[in-house]
Amino acid sequence: MSAPRQLPPRVGVWLIGARGSVATTVVAGCAALTAGLRPPTGLVTETPTFARSGLPALSSLVFGGHDTLDCPLPKRAEQLAAGGVLPPGLPAAVEAELAAAEREIRPGGPLPGDTRDEEELIAAFATDLRDFVRRLGLDRAVVVNVASTEPAPTGAALPASSLYAAAALRAGCPYVNFTPSTGLHHPGLAGLAASSGLPYGGRDGKTGQTLLRSVLGPMFAQRALDVRAWSGTNLLGGGDGAALADPAAAAAKNAGKERVLADTLGTVPEGQVHIDDVPALGDWKTAWDHVAFDGFLGTRMVLQTIWQGCDSALAAPLVLDLARLLARAHELGLSGPRPELAFFFKDPVGDAPASLAEQYAELERFARRLSEEDGR
Amino acid sequence: MSAPRQLPPRVGVWLIGARGSVATTVVAGCAALTAGLRPPTGLVTETPTFARSGLPALSSLVFGGHDTLDCPLPKRAEQLAAGGVLPPGLPAAVEAELAAAEREIRPGGPLPGDTRDEEELIAAFATDLRDFVRRLGLDRAVVVNVASTEPAPTGAALPASSLYAAAALRAGCPYVNFTPSTGLHHPGLAGLAASSGLPYGGRDGKTGQTLLRSVLGPMFAQRALDVRAWSGTNLLGGGDGAALADPAAAAAKNAGKERVLADTLGTVPEGQVHIDDVPALGDWKTAWDHVAFDGFLGTRMVLQTIWQGCDSALAAPLVLDLARLLARAHELGLSGPRPELAFFFKDPVGDAPASLAEQYAELERFARRLSEEDGR
Amino acid sequence: MSAPRQLPPRVGVWLIGARGSVATTVVAGCAALTAGLRPPTGLVTETPTFARSGLPALSSLVFGGHDTLDCPLPKRAEQLAAGGVLPPGLPAAVEAELAAAEREIRPGGPLPGDTRDEEELIAAFATDLRDFVRRLGLDRAVVVNVASTEPAPTGAALPASSLYAAAALRAGCPYVNFTPSTGLHHPGLAGLAASSGLPYGGRDGKTGQTLLRSVLGPMFAQRALDVRAWSGTNLLGGGDGAALADPAAAAAKNAGKERVLADTLGTVPEGQVHIDDVPALGDWKTAWDHVAFDGFLGTRMVLQTIWQGCDSALAAPLVLDLARLLARAHELGLSGPRPELAFFFKDPVGDAPASLAEQYAELERFARRLSEEDGR
Amino acid sequence: MSAPRQLPPRVGVWLIGARGSVATTVVAGCAALTAGLRPPTGLVTETPTFARSGLPALSSLVFGGHDTLDCPLPKRAEQLAAGGVLPPGLPAAVEAELAAAEREIRPGGPLPGDTRDEEELIAAFATDLRDFVRRLGLDRAVVVNVASTEPAPTGAALPASSLYAAAALRAGCPYVNFTPSTGLHHPGLAGLAASSGLPYGGRDGKTGQTLLRSVLGPMFAQRALDVRAWSGTNLLGGGDGAALADPAAAAAKNAGKERVLADTLGTVPEGQVHIDDVPALGDWKTAWDHVAFDGFLGTRMVLQTIWQGCDSALAAPLVLDLARLLARAHELGLSGPRPELAFFFKDPVGDAPASLAEQYAELERFARRLSEEDGR
Repeated sequence: MSAPRQLPPRVGVWLIGARGSVATTVVAGCAALTAGLRPPTGLVTETPTFARSGLPALSSLVFGGHDTLDCPLPKRAEQLAAGGVLPPGLPAAVEAELAAAEREIRPGGPLPGDTRDEEELIAAFATDLRDFVRRLGLDRAVVVNVASTEPAPTGAALPASSLYAAAALRAGCPYVNFTPSTGLHHPGLAGLAASSGLPYGGRDGKTGQTLLRSVLGPMFAQRALDVRAWSGTNLLGGGDGAALADPAAAAAKNAGKERVLADTLGTVPEGQVHIDDVPALGDWKTAWDHVAFDGFLGTRMVLQTIWQGCDSALAAPLVLDLARLLARAHELGLSGPRPELAFFFKDPVGDAPASLAEQYAELERFARRLSEEDGR
Repeated sequence: MSAPRQLPPRVGVWLIGARGSVATTVVAGCAALTAGLRPPTGLVTETPTFARSGLPALSSLVFGGHDTLDCPLPKRAEQLAAGGVLPPGLPAAVEAELAAAEREIRPGGPLPGDTRDEEELIAAFATDLRDFVRRLGLDRAVVVNVASTEPAPTGAALPASSLYAAAALRAGCPYVNFTPSTGLHHPGLAGLAASSGLPYGGRDGKTGQTLLRSVLGPMFAQRALDVRAWSGTNLLGGGDGAALADPAAAAAKNAGKERVLADTLGTVPEGQVHIDDVPALGDWKTAWDHVAFDGFLGTRMVLQTIWQGCDSALAAPLVLDLARLLARAHELGLSGPRPELAFFFKDPVGDAPASLAEQYAELERFARRLSEEDGR
Repeated sequence: MSAPRQLPPRVGVWLIGARGSVATTVVAGCAALTAGLRPPTGLVTETPTFARSGLPALSSLVFGGHDTLDCPLPKRAEQLAAGGVLPPGLPAAVEAELAAAEREIRPGGPLPGDTRDEEELIAAFATDLRDFVRRLGLDRAVVVNVASTEPAPTGAALPASSLYAAAALRAGCPYVNFTPSTGLHHPGLAGLAASSGLPYGGRDGKTGQTLLRSVLGPMFAQRALDVRAWSGTNLLGGGDGAALADPAAAAAKNAGKERVLADTLGTVPEGQVHIDDVPALGDWKTAWDHVAFDGFLGTRMVLQTIWQGCDSALAAPLVLDLARLLARAHELGLSGPRPELAFFFKDPVGDAPASLAEQYAELERFARRLSEEDGR
Repeated sequence: MSAPRQLPPRVGVWLIGARGSVATTVVAGCAALTAGLRPPTGLVTETPTFARSGLPALSSLVFGGHDTLDCPLPKRAEQLAAGGVLPPGLPAAVEAELAAAEREIRPGGPLPGDTRDEEELIAAFATDLRDFVRRLGLDRAVVVNVASTEPAPTGAALPASSLYAAAALRAGCPYVNFTPSTGLHHPGLAGLAASSGLPYGGRDGKTGQTLLRSVLGPMFAQRALDVRAWSGTNLLGGGDGAALADPAAAAAKNAGKERVLADTLGTVPEGQVHIDDVPALGDWKTAWDHVAFDGFLGTRMVLQTIWQGCDSALAAPLVLDLARLLARAHELGLSGPRPELAFFFKDPVGDAPASLAEQYAELERFARRLSEEDGR
């Protein structure tokens, strides 16, 4: 009698904000890569470094999520293609996969008029998650928050992002917060996170200006150049631009940007960061940075950088990377904050270096560890 | 009977191109720092990492060199102050030190009409060097080439920079080539370098565009972003601008810039590098870089950088760093190519990484090694 | 008995390089505007200034031309849409008009192995033109050169662009050269142009860097600021990038750029202009300009500009503008060089101002004149 | 008996904020030009256009003013030279002229604790002005406000800038407001201005970002390009940076910047303007502008500009220009708002065009008028 054929593990990726630009790009992009329509540009976990880390294959990922909006994923994808975010023709080519993910999207909350209390909302979200895993026969699911940035919370109440995070823990799912929202960073969730035995990542994906700062900051420090002022302006349209035009929401994001400078330079230079909502830019963003620094004998010099990128295209591959890495960490029984993922975040968890190069070295070590643990 | 008081070691720094902008800034700056007039901004070897490495103190450095020009150092310093390269008032404050260095400058060569052959020139330069060390009672001297970039040599004859390099070896002096000129990189000097038992550094100091490329290249590679084209234009005045307007001289410099991209990206992207002589800029340079890269699903994005710096102020502290590090290496008996100094060069020697972060890690290890060897 | 219904005049636009990016965008764009699919952005002649100038309606334009390539216009349009030059979906929406224009494209020349002499080629091209006008019952046709830039001619022989220009004159067609090629600017054609009684425009459309220079140059002059150096780099892919990577072709283009500075500043500043072929940019171009200027008391200041545009989308509306203006001028019997069109050219004909503002004032006067002459 | 020798007219320039950076640069610069130490770069009224306009010679200008600070002009000039705003050595070379102006500076107000009411302050300031003219035997004096920008006034009370403006009118002096402060633009001064019979200029000198906008805005409009968003960030140190970090003060300045766009584009594009106080920049400012525009068929394109200038060096020559022009207008009996000076202002008075080119044409006409009126 032959042994039963071992099915490859199937891993769920549960997206908070499942009908947003980032989530749509994640689902469409994963399908395009699986079908061989596009090379895996931007996907860190498809580089040779991770070849033996035992990560779940892209073809094994199954998508679902929560959202409070109605526009179905296939239509959202068409909108993104019209705006140049997705290649023309791609939405049609992966329509089946978009439709499949669309069927696994459940209503988020709380919506206006919602009378459920925090506990009821968490319970409902956790039920959705467990149902997703059970119904589709998944080995596990990772929850990733890619919803619009919410204002910094003012009272003790849990903001929506934290309700979803609590639901993830309750349903036994590793959690990543790709946005500057509170998520798991709420004092009310600290105990739950510690006792959950689940691995979780940092906060606020590093996709543009802060990515640059995390390599340029160390350069100035290593060369003993004296950064006097670091000023920046971000122009972005899309939902993120509108959300961050709210000063309270921008405050959370800017805190992350400044932390990188303080940590890499060892000092806080002068200068502000602006985030402007410019709807005409659509899903594209432009970040200008102006660094005034002193060199030898106090000579004044300037570095300026201009970064023009598509936010969703920058974020989506990192979301896939994080989901795969946390799924594998969960499979191996790793738990708690994962500072090894600092490479991806403005605001890493645990004790992590601030320079991108050191963060990458940590990630490489993690890739090896994931590989070795496989052989235990 | 008391032991004789041990004099602190005195170390010579012999500058090829001793009356140029970089050399003048080196001498004036070292004096300003020693006198406490300025903080040691830009000087890597004054950071805590090197506190216990046993490097010679700045106050122990003694300057001399070769040059084919006549303008005395104190006057040259006044010119640099008028152009904003040196702080106003500094030349007057350090006039004694400038005059002292001026007295140790010997005629370089070969000048037009010079009938000496290679051997005679090398011998003459080596005699100048030995005389400098003996007369001033120096423990050792390091030779640093900061002369204008020379055209790439076409035949078997040794270019001037290689004659000076040969003289350094013959006089028993560690050697650094801060320019793209040939220097020690001539096949005719390979045997001499190997048998000299002397330590030597790389070629072509990394002070602007290439410095940036050595941190940005790894960033793109680590994020699996596909760099399609990397184009650059450098505007610079001063002697360097004029020298590099010669395509043959620029070729050597550009080769270094492209090597950094190839080594960090693992591929050679499209794009050219231009070096324009713009006398109106004086000693200032502007470097614009335009990086066209593809992200997830082939989305086209762009990073641009603009670096505006003062060439002499960028180079001078690194010259001091290199002289101190090689002097200490020599004191400890280290010999041969020093890949640990790759942090400073476009074109390092030996087996060195191309990413600035890894180069800095190597340098940190070297700092510790210099310290430990002291206790042998 | 009723009077016969007057048919609106139909005007031919004969494009040299009829299957290139610019020509394809001209044909597809005109159809899209006529059909009301897009607003007339970028079309100067659709602004109120020209409302009463009696210009031929966009819907009355009929396209044809010469080309040496084979790729049919509908397919070329699909390629441009894939590269983001045309909006997705547009090629399909205007397929009939693209196919109609494709039917009117005749083989250009001389092709390799072509044994026809200059006279035979001119005669053949002129025959194609007369046939186009007669067969389609056109009132007149304007010839516009939008072919790839050719190297500057070295001998007395007429380059291809001049053969086409001669054919236009022989066939009685107004002529515009939107490229830096020689076209009508050949001494051998001066007599023909003078005796033809036809109106003709300048050379080399002003679509990016030079457009900017024609407004920034006067600003510096009017403010009495002393421009010391004006340096520029252009990155462009597509056919134009490859053609201009040839130094001989670039020389013609750069001459136009420098002429604008000399004419508006009253002096020739330091600085070079580079044109780099960067295929990865496709039909997009980036132009960086660095202007070093002195202000009061010699204070050094800098202006930098970065222009990122789509070459075909910048050129195409101007081609339509020029065709309409010259058709109307022809209708009114105006002849010879038209300096009133200097607004559109790097290298205007006749006695024209260099500042864009003055050129625009001339164009406004021309718009009124075209209107008034109607009532003669 | 010979006729008495006619003394050349002597004209007073009374600076509100007489010890600030701009005022110091005005006084030192005028002396440097008069002495032939520097060419008149940046001085519009020294171009040939104004050669016959009968303007008072630079050597005939006599300086005085009000200020609430104590630092004497010669010392202030030394500070500016240390910061690179004035050439090294200039303060010493013109020390006599600086000291002469210093003697004519009177205490401004109201200072904290000042119990004088509005009428008393105006009367005191007017007395200072009349005393200046009488004591020095001046033909006339022009008052120019170059004090730090004050917050927009909230009530009916006259802000300090308006008290000075009222004093100018009362003392019979033409008035210019080079700052965004209220000055003469207060409803309470409208009647006085109208009845004074004095000529006066606009508000808020156009020295950088807005200067650029006044030439780039018309370019987009003339080319029928659709500007979707125009965003800008200004970094500036010095007193102006600190003053404008106050949102109320910045509001006045930004209003002027946006007006230029609205007037030249005929529409108000998306986008914000930020003014950041960056003390590390000293008297230097950097302005970045990002213009997102649509071309033909909606193709998205971008223009970015970076302006790096020295604020005082940009403002000072224009202050001299305005003083000379208004002095001459006063001499000729011209009165009321002078829209001919719109070339100099973000916020011109009277009915003036918004495009710099048209403003310059108006100024040229004014130059001729000043000349012709001389011959009446």
